[in-house]
Amino acid sequence: MITRLSQLFLRTLRDDPADAEVPSHKLLVRAGYVRRIAPGVYSWLPLGLRVLREVERVVREEMDAIGAQEISLPALLPREPYETSNRWTEYGPDLFRLQDRKGNDYLLGPTHEEMFALTVKGEYNSYKDFPVTLYQVQAKYRDEQRPRAGILRGREFIMKDSYSFDLTDEGLADSYRAHRDAYERILARLGVKYVIVSATSGAMGGSASEEFLAESEIGEDTYVRCLESGYAANVEAVKTLAPQPIPLDGLPAAQVHDTPGTESIDTLVDWANAAELGRTVTGADTLKNIMVKTRVPGGEWELLGIGIPGDREVDEKRLEAALEPAEYVLITETDFANNPFLIKGYIGPKALQDNDVRYLVDPRVVDGTAWITGADEQGKHYVDLVAGRDFTPDGTIEAAEVRDGDPSPDGAGTLVAARGIEVGHVFQLGRKYTDAFEVNVLGENGKPVRPTMGSYGIGVSRLVAVIAEQHHDDKGLRWPAEVSPADVHVVIANKDESAREGAETLASELDKSGVSVILDDRKSSPGVKFKDSELLGVPLVVVVGRGWAEGKVELRDRFTGESREVATERALGEVLATLRD
Amino acid sequence: MITRLSQLFLRTLRDDPADAEVPSHKLLVRAGYVRRIAPGVYSWLPLGLRVLREVERVVREEMDAIGAQEISLPALLPREPYETSNRWTEYGPDLFRLQDRKGNDYLLGPTHEEMFALTVKGEYNSYKDFPVTLYQVQAKYRDEQRPRAGILRGREFIMKDSYSFDLTDEGLADSYRAHRDAYERILARLGVKYVIVSATSGAMGGSASEEFLAESEIGEDTYVRCLESGYAANVEAVKTLAPQPIPLDGLPAAQVHDTPGTESIDTLVDWANAAELGRTVTGADTLKNIMVKTRVPGGEWELLGIGIPGDREVDEKRLEAALEPAEYVLITETDFANNPFLIKGYIGPKALQDNDVRYLVDPRVVDGTAWITGADEQGKHYVDLVAGRDFTPDGTIEAAEVRDGDPSPDGAGTLVAARGIEVGHVFQLGRKYTDAFEVNVLGENGKPVRPTMGSYGIGVSRLVAVIAEQHHDDKGLRWPAEVSPADVHVVIANKDESAREGAETLASELDKSGVSVILDDRKSSPGVKFKDSELLGVPLVVVVGRGWAEGKVELRDRFTGESREVATERALGEVLATLRD
Repeated sequence: MITRLSQLFLRTLRDDPADAEVPSHKLLVRAGYVRRIAPGVYSWLPLGLRVLREVERVVREEMDAIGAQEISLPALLPREPYETSNRWTEYGPDLFRLQDRKGNDYLLGPTHEEMFALTVKGEYNSYKDFPVTLYQVQAKYRDEQRPRAGILRGREFIMKDSYSFDLTDEGLADSYRAHRDAYERILARLGVKYVIVSATSGAMGGSASEEFLAESEIGEDTYVRCLESGYAANVEAVKTLAPQPIPLDGLPAAQVHDTPGTESIDTLVDWANAAELGRTVTGADTLKNIMVKTRVPGGEWELLGIGIPGDREVDEKRLEAALEPAEYVLITETDFANNPFLIKGYIGPKALQDNDVRYLVDPRVVDGTAWITGADEQGKHYVDLVAGRDFTPDGTIEAAEVRDGDPSPDGAGTLVAARGIEVGHVFQLGRKYTDAFEVNVLGENGKPVRPTMGSYGIGVSRLVAVIAEQHHDDKGLRWPAEVSPADVHVVIANKDESAREGAETLASELDKSGVSVILDDRKSSPGVKFKDSELLGVPLVVVVGRGWAEGKVELRDRFTGESREVATERALGEVLATLRD
Repeated sequence: MITRLSQLFLRTLRDDPADAEVPSHKLLVRAGYVRRIAPGVYSWLPLGLRVLREVERVVREEMDAIGAQEISLPALLPREPYETSNRWTEYGPDLFRLQDRKGNDYLLGPTHEEMFALTVKGEYNSYKDFPVTLYQVQAKYRDEQRPRAGILRGREFIMKDSYSFDLTDEGLADSYRAHRDAYERILARLGVKYVIVSATSGAMGGSASEEFLAESEIGEDTYVRCLESGYAANVEAVKTLAPQPIPLDGLPAAQVHDTPGTESIDTLVDWANAAELGRTVTGADTLKNIMVKTRVPGGEWELLGIGIPGDREVDEKRLEAALEPAEYVLITETDFANNPFLIKGYIGPKALQDNDVRYLVDPRVVDGTAWITGADEQGKHYVDLVAGRDFTPDGTIEAAEVRDGDPSPDGAGTLVAARGIEVGHVFQLGRKYTDAFEVNVLGENGKPVRPTMGSYGIGVSRLVAVIAEQHHDDKGLRWPAEVSPADVHVVIANKDESAREGAETLASELDKSGVSVILDDRKSSPGVKFKDSELLGVPLVVVVGRGWAEGKVELRDRFTGESREVATERALGEVLATLRD
């Protein structure tokens, strides 16, 4: 195929769009690949659509290779199945909801677990039919609170989602592994640098779950890794390495001290070090108790106390993930007024336990650890209040922030933080949805069996942005050959008619060899054309320019920036050889 | 590609689905091609999706061949552009509307004129950029009042829509012609029998407009054709052939008669023939006046009188099309009460004109025609009330039904009615949308030029149903080769292990030759397999069955029903030769 820039629906921009902050967004707009229609809603212009389709092709090839079968479900979905699974409510404002002319409720599908479970239930009824894996590539909808960075976090976006159905846990593990491997191959083919991190499963339910994060400084997902062991996890999924419990025998008794004006950890630590307790005190020796209210959707609000070492902040995402599916809010003045045992700045474990308030602590608060913490009276704190002796929490909670230098959960070294963009997600969902829809099939022994599901997603349109994010320079995009909108970009940079004819001939020969060509046959100046070739980012550029008179054309490598001249009659062979490498 | 039925996500059904009335719907569900999710909302299972993709491929090839460029706009669209064009209101309840979390209004795109006009405005600004034609293949949404016949009339459906932008009317005519020709090629390749009919443009605005109707008894569109001239038109678009005006001189004067109890045309005709008027009277000699109220969207309701010959009914679709974009309702008892000059059963032109009510008549009511019509008093009618002498209508309206035997508008013969399914539509839209969005480009003379638009749609998912509707028998589907989900269906109908191996070898050799194969390798009986091969509808079936022991396989033609035996060693060559034909 030859694409002539004189005909192509394309207008490149010299200036960055005003609303763009990240390189991929700036460049994809400047290069005329995408255009904004509304917040988080974009259109794909011809070259952008080609890249999108190339990504789709790679994804489909790898899905087909693991025996997944493509189907296509609608985006417009009835409420009932999502009511059954409770996600109609759980999704909250992220779900686009609408009504039809008869007042029936519909939604725009954010992900399709319910529909695939029902689809399999509708067709299959015997163990002989399993395992089966289905997938689709399709527009999905999420009403993101903060759509961001162009197509990176959109409200309408293209996603490949697949769902495996197995009769045994081992089967599910195999399907999961097959997907994980396929995702690794997809990302390798697309030239995406990524890490696989342990993840919580969020509103999806289920157990084993990993995320594929593209490495990127502009990523919204923070993850941590242990360079020594290779351990990597989403911050929400990091399990704190708890210390060994300490024998209670011989620990000093708890004492109440007057600590006026120590509502903050800093002032408390200052007091402690001035009080000559016989040791140097840091925030890590204090236990601060944060009060929230939680409820499961539709339920009653209940008080919850969370105790974490005073040198750490609560990480809202970790707290949210730890409480899910329950939601939470911080308590208000009214709550303090209604619960007079809560003394602001001096809340301690004892009042919570005495008043039957659920109390969860950081995993570092093991038995035998001694804390400086609130004594539930204005201006008073305990010193040496010992866990497992003076108070007994109702359990632990992963709510405290994770820091660079924290020990890796596997004990192999320390954690360092990095940022990434979620591009894929694999889940062992289990039977949450097959239970909800009572999917039973006849087992080998004649008894009903309930299939177990895996759910797997890869962000197709997001990957276009991620590839642009990881492969660009200050001049423009640099597409990996697998997804480039063309194989070769031929620039006519010589007004001589014979040069034009030569370029046309070369393009035509390349086309006959199955090579897709962008041919810049516009009347613009060579400078404009070179700039556009850099901006558009086809990996191999052929310039028919000054050297034409001496029988030479120039080959430019968009990735390395290197260029070399080759004799005109050898140009076709050289280009084909370069593309083969 | 080899698709093994032992693995394929497919369950064929022996019984017709309860909600299906038309053959394509029954068969596409029974053969496991599509499944219902909600009214007018379907999912595509593996084989259905393949057929859909084949139709898309043919459409894309023909669009690319006329130089149209593919882009992709979102389905989720902001309200503002549709507000500007007035279609946010005009579309009425057919439009799916929704709000995002911030309360902003959105819609699900039913068609994209607004967005394409804005897209071209955003990129192009000079006469040098034109003409340009853009297209997309995409899910569209219309909240049909009566979703019908499976995927034939869905609420979420796949459509190819394209839009041409030209600077001159001649250019628009060329773009229109190119699309018209492309649609003819598409339908020919898909094996669809169709007619092209003149059409009104409905809510789209604009002038020249034709519909491609697939011939089908189950079609919802009634069209008429003149067998003598080849004229064909949508019923809404038929222009009545008006008779010549009659000189007024010498016509008898109008007389008022007592006609008690003649509220209906039948009773009026009976009275007239009993009254010895000196001629035989039929309903065609009477003029009945129907009262409606109309308003442009957002405007006030106004009375409108419509006069048509008494032997014809009002055709609601024609009336609706004639009044568009205004809407109408029949008047109520309250309206009669508020307008005492309207005497039910005796309404005549005179009271309407005396009371400044707009009055439109059928084109047959030309000057000099004499009518029996209401005299605006209880139990009284005029005889010989002459148009152009005794009353002067405000204009004509195409509201009366069209009948078999009516003269063709081109005067070449008579009209006969037939039914069809709209599969394509081509419009010369003109400047409705470029005016609305003030799309100006720099003209060759330095002055601004406003591009003129064409709009062209073809129903991709509907075509799957139409092909099934036109190509099936009582045993199942019969796909034309261009869209078949596979090239060959190989049935293993012999339990002998060597037969199975032979079938596998044949499938593998076909695959290597680039032929896509469905291989029925299930353990089912030959009878079940034969039935499924007929139901699924691949045009060429190879049976490795009884003849295997004598070195023979059977080739079955699904279209003709013919079968022949060929020697096993010649099977590959025979299949390839058959596919080439």
